[in-house]
Amino acid sequence: MDKLINEPTAYVDEMLDGMVAAHDGLRRLDGTDVLVRADGPVEGKVAVVTGGGSGHEPTHAGYVGEGMLDGAAAGAVFTSPTADEFSALIDAADGGAGVLCVVKNYEGDVMNFDTGAEMAGMEGVEDVEQVVVNDDVAVEDSLYTSGRRGVCGTILVHKCAGAKAAAGADLDEVARVAEKVVDNVGTMGMALTSCVTPEKGEETFDLADDEMELGIGIHGEPGVERTETASADEVADTLLDHVLDDLDVAAGEEVVTIVNGMGGTPLSELYIVQRRVAERLDEAGVDVHDAWVGDYMTSLDMKGCSVTVCRVDDELKELLAAPAETPALTVGE
Amino acid sequence: MDKLINEPTAYVDEMLDGMVAAHDGLRRLDGTDVLVRADGPVEGKVAVVTGGGSGHEPTHAGYVGEGMLDGAAAGAVFTSPTADEFSALIDAADGGAGVLCVVKNYEGDVMNFDTGAEMAGMEGVEDVEQVVVNDDVAVEDSLYTSGRRGVCGTILVHKCAGAKAAAGADLDEVARVAEKVVDNVGTMGMALTSCVTPEKGEETFDLADDEMELGIGIHGEPGVERTETASADEVADTLLDHVLDDLDVAAGEEVVTIVNGMGGTPLSELYIVQRRVAERLDEAGVDVHDAWVGDYMTSLDMKGCSVTVCRVDDELKELLAAPAETPALTVGE
Repeated sequence: MDKLINEPTAYVDEMLDGMVAAHDGLRRLDGTDVLVRADGPVEGKVAVVTGGGSGHEPTHAGYVGEGMLDGAAAGAVFTSPTADEFSALIDAADGGAGVLCVVKNYEGDVMNFDTGAEMAGMEGVEDVEQVVVNDDVAVEDSLYTSGRRGVCGTILVHKCAGAKAAAGADLDEVARVAEKVVDNVGTMGMALTSCVTPEKGEETFDLADDEMELGIGIHGEPGVERTETASADEVADTLLDHVLDDLDVAAGEEVVTIVNGMGGTPLSELYIVQRRVAERLDEAGVDVHDAWVGDYMTSLDMKGCSVTVCRVDDELKELLAAPAETPALTVGE
Repeated sequence: MDKLINEPTAYVDEMLDGMVAAHDGLRRLDGTDVLVRADGPVEGKVAVVTGGGSGHEPTHAGYVGEGMLDGAAAGAVFTSPTADEFSALIDAADGGAGVLCVVKNYEGDVMNFDTGAEMAGMEGVEDVEQVVVNDDVAVEDSLYTSGRRGVCGTILVHKCAGAKAAAGADLDEVARVAEKVVDNVGTMGMALTSCVTPEKGEETFDLADDEMELGIGIHGEPGVERTETASADEVADTLLDHVLDDLDVAAGEEVVTIVNGMGGTPLSELYIVQRRVAERLDEAGVDVHDAWVGDYMTSLDMKGCSVTVCRVDDELKELLAAPAETPALTVGE
């Protein structure tokens, strides 16, 4: 197995220890797989938290820090954290002004976050709101989801909600901007290879060298169509067309785009996709306010990418530009 | 071939266009594969430039921006840029205070940068200094090098020299801090798989599923030893031991570390390596001032990692902490 690991069962535990070892701004809650801001909870500030299965790094804890998340719960690889972990996260992050939970739409995550929020409520955290992200335009229902899946657009929710909370807004306002991002963001992904999970040690699905899978999720769940491998431009066109169509983006509108790598694809290739995405949006008269290119939400060592488009207004642009200091994303003053 | 590309021959050209499309701070010099700061040249500031073969992204142009590099020349994949390209880079970056060229120690790069500097000199750029980075402790001479290769430690040279130049230092001073980093940094890498170049479309070398190669370079050139695959902790120990031994780091000294991914290894695994690196340095009584974990200097889609250690004093710590705003690295005020 071509992996830099020790015991597969220690994968998440050792990864989280490595994150804390590297980043002074992170603290691990004793006896849990929850990372929180080392300087938290921030008194009087709305806390923004998230969580989900591991294997999507830098998602989730890579976005914990000033201006983004107050904490994140890590489940086993591709497995939801337990309600206990979510409850511990909410308790630890609460600074007295309420907690916004950003949840990607997977059944386990939503259910365990719900239960965790109830448990936290019993322990005195009164105001807990949940925003469910469902940006994947590829499928209406999937292996793990009723309704659309939550994927890379979630990072923009973290950024905007985190910035709003840092600016001193109350829980309703923080939840409002999070929902505004959810309402305006769409993503579609594709894979050239399967990922290999540490426990299984072999590919989750077979994909021949000359095949690719469109509309794939971030857990190796099947996509909507298996086709012959296409060029980067054709891949970019297919993903972008689906997303633009779903969002109904019109000429003259402003958007932020993400070309996201799945973990095993080099950055150089993501820029080749980015080139085509920018060219196509320019031709369509859509104004690209900002373009992110890199590994933001991955699927272990899968080769492939996703394209995210988010319609932005002045409020979202300001929140995206606000300072942030996290392991995976820094925005300067 | 599991790659997001169009024509292999367009790989570098389209990647560079994609970088410029994504990052407003970058500008491509007409008719070249050179990217420079869009707001450059900065009058009265020493320019810091670099270059080399493509396939190592975000190296090189990913570090062009305020507080780091003024420009970078991109060669074909794993191939030095021409002297003409280096000359154009030096001309374009020069703000009248001289140019420091940071060159990784590969014969083509050093020779072409030399010639390029001479050509630029004929065109009126008077002060050009060159600093050669040779941080790879694995081999004394290699396929492409007399003496040690330049690898991931180069990023720290970019950061420190760039910060010194941004602070208004003259060319001698900028070159001095670059040399100081070179004198105090060591790196060793390993691979679990070969990389696949776009032109060739197949693996550069064969490495069985249960084998790894230690001391490998960043171009798929052979390492110093092929062994059975080992655990992440064993890999970390081997790489770190070689680097610490070479640098002769003693208890009580301060260092900055980089656990660098080769492009195809997920971030989660790099954190597992980081955990062990931190543990070992702690046991050795070495004070880790800062730890970087991520893909800084890659080898296309190779799976593997390198470990870099750099001894730091107050001057280098201050330069590493100075603001920077580049596509691949942002340090806030």
